[in-house]
Amino acid sequence: MGRLTGGDPSLLRRINSAVVLDALRGAGAATLTDLTRATGLSRPTVEGVVEGLISEGLVAEAAPEEPERGETRRQGRPARHFRFRAEAGHLLGVEIGPHRVAVLLSGLDGRVTGTGSREVAHTASADERLEQVRTLVAQVLRRSGVPRSSLRAVGVGTPGIVAADGSVRLCTALPGWTGLPLGERLRRSFRCPVLVENDANAAAVAEHWEGAATGSDDLVFVLAGLSPGAGSLIGGRLHRGHGGAAGEIGALHLLGREATPEALLSTTDEPLPPLDEQAVAKVFADARGGDARASAAVDRFLQRLVHDVAALVLALDPELVVVGGWAAGLEGVLDPLRAELSRYCLRPPRVALSALGETAVATGALRLALGHVEERLFTVERPLPERR
Amino acid sequence: MGRLTGGDPSLLRRINSAVVLDALRGAGAATLTDLTRATGLSRPTVEGVVEGLISEGLVAEAAPEEPERGETRRQGRPARHFRFRAEAGHLLGVEIGPHRVAVLLSGLDGRVTGTGSREVAHTASADERLEQVRTLVAQVLRRSGVPRSSLRAVGVGTPGIVAADGSVRLCTALPGWTGLPLGERLRRSFRCPVLVENDANAAAVAEHWEGAATGSDDLVFVLAGLSPGAGSLIGGRLHRGHGGAAGEIGALHLLGREATPEALLSTTDEPLPPLDEQAVAKVFADARGGDARASAAVDRFLQRLVHDVAALVLALDPELVVVGGWAAGLEGVLDPLRAELSRYCLRPPRVALSALGETAVATGALRLALGHVEERLFTVERPLPERR
Repeated sequence: MGRLTGGDPSLLRRINSAVVLDALRGAGAATLTDLTRATGLSRPTVEGVVEGLISEGLVAEAAPEEPERGETRRQGRPARHFRFRAEAGHLLGVEIGPHRVAVLLSGLDGRVTGTGSREVAHTASADERLEQVRTLVAQVLRRSGVPRSSLRAVGVGTPGIVAADGSVRLCTALPGWTGLPLGERLRRSFRCPVLVENDANAAAVAEHWEGAATGSDDLVFVLAGLSPGAGSLIGGRLHRGHGGAAGEIGALHLLGREATPEALLSTTDEPLPPLDEQAVAKVFADARGGDARASAAVDRFLQRLVHDVAALVLALDPELVVVGGWAAGLEGVLDPLRAELSRYCLRPPRVALSALGETAVATGALRLALGHVEERLFTVERPLPERR
Repeated sequence: MGRLTGGDPSLLRRINSAVVLDALRGAGAATLTDLTRATGLSRPTVEGVVEGLISEGLVAEAAPEEPERGETRRQGRPARHFRFRAEAGHLLGVEIGPHRVAVLLSGLDGRVTGTGSREVAHTASADERLEQVRTLVAQVLRRSGVPRSSLRAVGVGTPGIVAADGSVRLCTALPGWTGLPLGERLRRSFRCPVLVENDANAAAVAEHWEGAATGSDDLVFVLAGLSPGAGSLIGGRLHRGHGGAAGEIGALHLLGREATPEALLSTTDEPLPPLDEQAVAKVFADARGGDARASAAVDRFLQRLVHDVAALVLALDPELVVVGGWAAGLEGVLDPLRAELSRYCLRPPRVALSALGETAVATGALRLALGHVEERLFTVERPLPERR
């Protein structure tokens, strides 16, 4: 039985701060009168809250607006304007993949102000890979003139099944990754929260934020590749599954059919070398060049991908399927996928290619870091007990 | 931008009423002192709220408790006790299936006080089937002495893809069902809300409420049968999908493999007659009796079911899979299913047989009706704006 208690003044202050800050963030610059109108709070309350936010460094007074040309300056002192200080803190979005690491840096508004990436051998050990991440982060911060102490949250997207504490339960794509306490290892480099997420999940969040899925709250993102995966949003929220393994279609791929992507994409009797993206790129290029064996290999792969995605769609019934992962070579999957889905679904989902391409995973990681900070800045606990 | 407004007295009254009613419901019988302690509200507030609930018919004064044997009666007037009047309203849970209709009746506490069921030919038209439902409901109400006007909500579980307005988008199992405005048709018979839900979804809700899944908020319920389906709860909430078609594994079943359950379960070159449950029962019985062809047919069917369930599990990553639908003949699916899931899942879900058997769909429909009423009685709008 939850308890209902009387008005808690500190809770009320936090509610009012969150409401004013959210109004300021949307407005660009606003006067006390604007804020009073937007929030429904009294003017003295708004004044007190704004003073508090200024002392926390989250709000600053903005330069007074110049009168528009032809407008006569109004009499008396111009009203003070205030703005949200997006530069009061910074966020990182990090992708750690089999072949590269990539970093995005932003202020508290999520607008990207710095980027970097570097190639990593897919045979690199976990220590080597983490060292590359640290070096890259230091570079990006230095180039952007942002001190490490300004970081408020770091999001990380990586292949594999990721536990709630940021450790990697299982990952076949990166050497030494299974069992790695990735969140804990990275937290040593940062004095802020580090959020680790499966790469396909992060990409789903990114496409929903500013990619191919901005209008859809129910979507499946398919990360095509040699270690394929999928991420899904249900009602706008990431669906991780009970053990963080939802959408692990790497296994679905094999279900009752023992062929790996490397075998499907081979043009000889031998499968491609494991995780060899260059060999894959050559097969796709040969297929585009008209090579019959390469075309047959690509068709085999696409057909399998279509079946896997159809199974996901039947299980989840999303509004939209976004296909990403391999920047090139996937255009050919859209039509067969649409045809297959329309055979089995009463109302087939829309199907689209990723709009963010190779930045999807890092962008999603950045969005997760932003969400973490927003929760602290802009929301408050609900005062009512949850119903069972 | 949501607005935060000052204390709204009518909202506060509703909050307090909901809190007191919820405390009373859990307590059996309680004094004003008990309620003051349980809710954290002041005694005058509790007194006022209880008076209001009595005048609404939702609360009654309970008979004073007799002193226990050997306990001396305390001096003075005994404290008044109050109880939740579960009999203040009634709920129905209705299953409309291919071969039968079934009805459960309960008070506002969800405890079943009346039941009924009748066979319906699977060839019956929609009008005939609805007439059977109406006759059965009238019987159950009459036998229980409950006037129709006492009904507060009716839940209905039925095969097919059900739209939010209670119409059936698609159903291959019941003649005339596709396109039927089922909710609208039933609302003519009742003066209360009618909630229509897919049968597998309803069964998932039921097993979570009081069946094999009471401890699991992330579960998949598989309704095995000639028109198979699945329902899933994610975080304790039903996942319907964007178009209400989540878990329609009837199609998954066929994906890339054009064999129907009737073909798989046949012991001859011809498939079984469509939807012929008696023929299926005979095959299962023959298999148990040692018939080699029947055993092979059952094995074919189970193997397919195992693959379909594995695909659902990889997509959703539930904590628990409950298999139901056919009361007999499914024991043999558990071990192969566990073996297959442990091959592909790092942390395979638990697998269990339905605990509710053939009452699962009607029980889930009743729970949905109860949930609808609870929302009105026991919860209040949250006073804060939702974050985007």
